[in-house]
Amino acid sequence: MTAEIISVGTELLLGQILNSDAQYLARELSALGFNLYHQVTVGDNMDRLCECLKTALERSDVVLLSGGLGPTEDDMTKEAVAKVFGLEMELDEASKSEIKCFFASRHYEMTPNNLRQAMFPKGGIVMPNAKGTAPGCIVEQDGKASIVLPGPPHELTDMFEKQARPYLMKLSDSKIVSRVVRVFGMGESSVEHRVRDLMDGANPTLAPYASVGEVTLRLTAKVGPNEDASALLDPLTNELLARLGDLVYSTNDERLEYLAVRLLRESGKTLALAESCTGGLVASMITDVPGASEALLEGVVTYSNAAKIRRLGVKAETLERFGAVSEQTAREMAEGAKDSAGADFALALTGIAGPGGGTDEKPVGLVYAALAGGGETFVKKLQLGGERRRIRTMSALHALDMLRRRLLGLPLETNK
Amino acid sequence: MTAEIISVGTELLLGQILNSDAQYLARELSALGFNLYHQVTVGDNMDRLCECLKTALERSDVVLLSGGLGPTEDDMTKEAVAKVFGLEMELDEASKSEIKCFFASRHYEMTPNNLRQAMFPKGGIVMPNAKGTAPGCIVEQDGKASIVLPGPPHELTDMFEKQARPYLMKLSDSKIVSRVVRVFGMGESSVEHRVRDLMDGANPTLAPYASVGEVTLRLTAKVGPNEDASALLDPLTNELLARLGDLVYSTNDERLEYLAVRLLRESGKTLALAESCTGGLVASMITDVPGASEALLEGVVTYSNAAKIRRLGVKAETLERFGAVSEQTAREMAEGAKDSAGADFALALTGIAGPGGGTDEKPVGLVYAALAGGGETFVKKLQLGGERRRIRTMSALHALDMLRRRLLGLPLETNK
Repeated sequence: MTAEIISVGTELLLGQILNSDAQYLARELSALGFNLYHQVTVGDNMDRLCECLKTALERSDVVLLSGGLGPTEDDMTKEAVAKVFGLEMELDEASKSEIKCFFASRHYEMTPNNLRQAMFPKGGIVMPNAKGTAPGCIVEQDGKASIVLPGPPHELTDMFEKQARPYLMKLSDSKIVSRVVRVFGMGESSVEHRVRDLMDGANPTLAPYASVGEVTLRLTAKVGPNEDASALLDPLTNELLARLGDLVYSTNDERLEYLAVRLLRESGKTLALAESCTGGLVASMITDVPGASEALLEGVVTYSNAAKIRRLGVKAETLERFGAVSEQTAREMAEGAKDSAGADFALALTGIAGPGGGTDEKPVGLVYAALAGGGETFVKKLQLGGERRRIRTMSALHALDMLRRRLLGLPLETNK
Repeated sequence: MTAEIISVGTELLLGQILNSDAQYLARELSALGFNLYHQVTVGDNMDRLCECLKTALERSDVVLLSGGLGPTEDDMTKEAVAKVFGLEMELDEASKSEIKCFFASRHYEMTPNNLRQAMFPKGGIVMPNAKGTAPGCIVEQDGKASIVLPGPPHELTDMFEKQARPYLMKLSDSKIVSRVVRVFGMGESSVEHRVRDLMDGANPTLAPYASVGEVTLRLTAKVGPNEDASALLDPLTNELLARLGDLVYSTNDERLEYLAVRLLRESGKTLALAESCTGGLVASMITDVPGASEALLEGVVTYSNAAKIRRLGVKAETLERFGAVSEQTAREMAEGAKDSAGADFALALTGIAGPGGGTDEKPVGLVYAALAGGGETFVKKLQLGGERRRIRTMSALHALDMLRRRLLGLPLETNK
């Protein structure tokens, strides 16, 4: 079964918004086992939209269209489908009532234009919109189907999940199952070097992706609709673990901060944070995880020396002798944060995130990450490249990885 | 002049990566005054790629292709261009030397495959790649041009800016200039309601975009290559200011945290932070701004009552009587943070970010934001909707907007 995506909207064509709908639909369609050969973006123009739809229907079994369901004259996706399929537009009474309700409940006035959202190609299956006013629809003809979805991502995903996916599942003869293995502590090219031969497989496939500081490996298996993909994915996962060892921190796409919070909560341990160069980024990442309040007692952002002394008990002598960016200061920050908060562990970060503030001796990107608790304090010296944001993110990830290693009893010293 | 974008890559087709290249190119091309009617994504398949390129060349003057320049057999974009234009491939000696150098400098071994990256359609203009090993090229024929760019975004943007844009500027007969006005404190539909009639203009155009908690308005003018767009953009900007008043916080796309840091630095004032529900998010946003260390003295993340008492001097009695999420606690947090840090201003946030922790009396989304300094402490009660992440982000933005208003002498009480 072949599927194709047509994204409709001038704002997409002009690059004013990022086309996340197309990525979402592509991922979902390939997970459902559809073959995808084309994605097209076209503006709010009847002739060009009809042309694209005709071409798509010639080469694909199912065409998903997103966007162009609004109340204005510019919104014409349903009309284009009707035109290409040779159908009339007709009013759907249920949609009309729902739209009326939507406006009444918000005390908005409904304009006649809004009724356009209740018009559909005759014979189409109407898909109500739980998140907005524009319903979608499915139109079938001669073994081909067009599925029309709204453009706003939260409306599209909701309608796809509840209504389009069940429809598509009936059409598909296979499914795609993916698993994401996450790696920290080694660059993309080195990871790729170690697993390159595994990337030649056809089923399951293995593909690496790099984001800041991390490498994720996506394992994908194609199986029958009722088959279990584990038989294909487990051996490959085990091979990756054998080759990458404890650089792998998750085999189920769990992010480092979620893992850290989970490990803390499972072991009943608590954490304190002392951040200089990361300026609250570690705290923010950790508190982004629901339930983090059980594990994180407190954090301090101490940019100034005065704050390091007052808040964390760093010795003035240490700051004077070794500087704010030093192994000694990082150590005292971590120990001070741990002791003053009464936490089991504390992470501390001090460094030069740039763009200013670097010297020959202490260049931009020099960061010390310290972990106190568990009987000893460990300090890691990092020399990070890139811009301010990358240096901050990498520093935070290194700190979280140190915590993971300590909580799992893994060695803290790692060789890249 | 009409341009079209073809994104090449199976990982894009399958939705494994987001197509940010297409957005970047679309924005740049429309800024250069090109008309854009189609964007296409196609996989690493010679027949389908050639078919798409042929169609694109029939309907557009310039076709930009991104991706498929790697060293493997899967990478075939240049070959497809040669095939469609009826050209041979030939070796470019300069590219060959550069690729050799690149590998030598990294002590990598160069495989014969890598030499494919030095092969180009005969007669094409080679564009060296300053950020990677794959050069791009421009191929012209019969008044049509194909511009081949690498897929990795940092390689693509570098090559586009330095080499493709100058080429395209010579072709274009107009330019597009955009200006972004940023609004905080009013929902998208209300903003739209106030400016709807201004959205009908053809030149300049006005389009609103919503992100979490903010509305941005994009003003776009099309002018001749040497014309000044201000004559079109200034009157519209002024009209927006007249209608939205001090809800507009920037007319040049400056983000709220950048504005806050700039205003603090310009006035020589300092800031301290006390965060509970936002857990370091405000600190992290502020310290993301280069030079923030001059303005931010310190921040504390005080989840527990003990930390609020010890770090900020919040009274145990206040916590007991009114609770951690209360106007009184927020006030004492801000005043304690300001006094203990010796800062001019302090922001404090306490609330329930969810998903757990809400009660009937204090539901998820209830947040108190306090600003101390400037002679008085102001506390704002917020009742925010949405998920944990949205509640945290909205809280942070409200706090930053309060600071902006105080620093600019604007009223702190706003009516939505």
